[in-house]
Amino acid sequence: MNGFIYLDNAATTMPSSSAMEAMMKSGEFFGNPSSLHGLGLKAEKLVEESRYAVAEKLNVKSENMLFTSGGTEANNTAVFGVANAKKKTGTRVITTKIEHPSVLQAFKKLETDGFDVRYIDVTPDGIIDLDSLYNELNEQTTLVSVMHVNNETGVIQPVEQVKEIMKDRAPNALLHSDCVQSFGKIDVNPKKMGADLVTVSAHKIRGCKGTGALYVSDMRMIRPTLYGGEQQKEMRPGTENVGGILAFGAAAKEIDTDNSYFITLRNTMKECLSDVPNIKINGSDEFNSGSILNISFLGIKAEILLHALEAKGVYVSTGSACSSHKPQPSPVLTAMGCSKKEIEGAIRISFDRRTTLDEIRIAAQIIAEEAASIRRYM
Amino acid sequence: MNGFIYLDNAATTMPSSSAMEAMMKSGEFFGNPSSLHGLGLKAEKLVEESRYAVAEKLNVKSENMLFTSGGTEANNTAVFGVANAKKKTGTRVITTKIEHPSVLQAFKKLETDGFDVRYIDVTPDGIIDLDSLYNELNEQTTLVSVMHVNNETGVIQPVEQVKEIMKDRAPNALLHSDCVQSFGKIDVNPKKMGADLVTVSAHKIRGCKGTGALYVSDMRMIRPTLYGGEQQKEMRPGTENVGGILAFGAAAKEIDTDNSYFITLRNTMKECLSDVPNIKINGSDEFNSGSILNISFLGIKAEILLHALEAKGVYVSTGSACSSHKPQPSPVLTAMGCSKKEIEGAIRISFDRRTTLDEIRIAAQIIAEEAASIRRYM
Repeated sequence: MNGFIYLDNAATTMPSSSAMEAMMKSGEFFGNPSSLHGLGLKAEKLVEESRYAVAEKLNVKSENMLFTSGGTEANNTAVFGVANAKKKTGTRVITTKIEHPSVLQAFKKLETDGFDVRYIDVTPDGIIDLDSLYNELNEQTTLVSVMHVNNETGVIQPVEQVKEIMKDRAPNALLHSDCVQSFGKIDVNPKKMGADLVTVSAHKIRGCKGTGALYVSDMRMIRPTLYGGEQQKEMRPGTENVGGILAFGAAAKEIDTDNSYFITLRNTMKECLSDVPNIKINGSDEFNSGSILNISFLGIKAEILLHALEAKGVYVSTGSACSSHKPQPSPVLTAMGCSKKEIEGAIRISFDRRTTLDEIRIAAQIIAEEAASIRRYM
Repeated sequence: MNGFIYLDNAATTMPSSSAMEAMMKSGEFFGNPSSLHGLGLKAEKLVEESRYAVAEKLNVKSENMLFTSGGTEANNTAVFGVANAKKKTGTRVITTKIEHPSVLQAFKKLETDGFDVRYIDVTPDGIIDLDSLYNELNEQTTLVSVMHVNNETGVIQPVEQVKEIMKDRAPNALLHSDCVQSFGKIDVNPKKMGADLVTVSAHKIRGCKGTGALYVSDMRMIRPTLYGGEQQKEMRPGTENVGGILAFGAAAKEIDTDNSYFITLRNTMKECLSDVPNIKINGSDEFNSGSILNISFLGIKAEILLHALEAKGVYVSTGSACSSHKPQPSPVLTAMGCSKKEIEGAIRISFDRRTTLDEIRIAAQIIAEEAASIRRYM
């Protein structure tokens, strides 16, 4: 228990010891990967081994992987990269209302650049509306970006079906999937999914913050986001974050695609909380990674519950970390049609493979007690 | 000596032990800086302390500092950020022929975007031609980007004089200075220099690869490069690279602005090599940071000398690391009017504050021997 129970793994995970060891290795092998001498070549070799380790987990070739400074840069590179590269063939670009801000805000920027942007609705279960997607797709569509697992609800999106519909309606459009929350929880296989571009991030899989990667099935399809030196075939210049990349490789080697334990954790938490009155689980149970439980305590302000839990050593979140300082209702729950009360009272409980069932039971009891206590004094 | 003498510090430096310790701290304080709970707040506090440490060394406020994934992203953000934000007031943008690829290639991209780009010549000493700058500046000019210390020659550019000329000729234009090679060697004071934007990088000052920072005197002057969450006032979204940032802060605390020891190292190397026939020092001695000695061995291919030195445990470079794999002549030496032979035979020897005079003497002897040996067998 380490004195606390950490259930905010969708925001970030504790780096694994092998990731930290790999990070430390970069202090020893400190050469610049672009240097021609042996110190540089050694660093370059280690970077390429990590690239291979990450690529292998996605079942793709390492030459199709670009390392970035994180999920945000990878998502931006996918969205801006494709939209701008294909501007002459069409300006319609499509995403959903429940994407991470690094996809949503990129599409907002494309709007101001004159693109014809469509945001697809989701069902009350948090699954994107495929009929709506079907209707919005046209021959001018160049890009569709649909996340794999939602970062607030854990709901798995039907990415393969999205690709099927695209084949019918917009065969030349490319599919990008933000897989930051699915990588390490369920199988992420770009080819099976039909995704031309896939984003992953190190710090969500027990690597370190500051490193992500973008799978690109064909580098000629995108424009780079950054311009500079010759690194990463000039598609992502800048001296590589060797430490972060080595940590990413080490963390990637340890991930698993079987989410049954996550499902067990989530179900156990649900069961333990089932007697708490006036709660509502947000998002599909059926199509869920298991790594996230989003639950509304009606009548309670989530932030008050969060701090009460923190005082007892249980760490959870309200919505996503990336917009936690913004006092605005979750766009994800809003898109799902949740009521104001449901949104105000929603906390996100998110798990790691190291989370134990004991921790779940203890945390659930504390959550139930604190919710009752807050309600008593309201 | 560690078994080798590392004289490629302009490419990257060995992280200091305090930087690596700070990096490791991020494994313990692993919260997401955007999380509302205590683990997040602690990480946020550490990031802000590092921001303050870096800002203090530049004598600016920490609220004017953006952390980036490195010098490349910082340079790109400055160049694209200003040029695009001010597009409506003018499209002339000016830089020099000796900038780092992350500035030069950004300007090349602006050319393809329709900007009116001017590249200023340099003198044979490697100092930018202020008369040429004077002539190119006009009222439509929005941005001038001039590096502080050149990454191949160590030559200090007259940034303050650039600002004076700008005040006269283009009072509304902003001045950006890439200070990646000057930070930690000589005083970098944006206000004294008259620079509105300044780029620095962690791994050149014994921090880790993957973190840089951009000073921006007024955030409203630029457009962000990345779009996403609310981090860094939405000017640079994405979960902060906490480890890299903490290492940057620790490294920044240890830098110095007095370059007299660098000058001693450089002069000692020059003296020790003075008997070697057919050599030429490239770049001004008078205006030099002392951290770099660029020297041509006429008739020798630099890469052959580099590998011969490596075999004896002395690490140097040919040109800059960021374009080392490109078999094209150095644009910096080309702009200085060096001959083909001078360019082909040029190696860059670059120092760190920990480099000892003994290492210089030993390395110089090895360099002289290897140069003679190569010439003997040519």
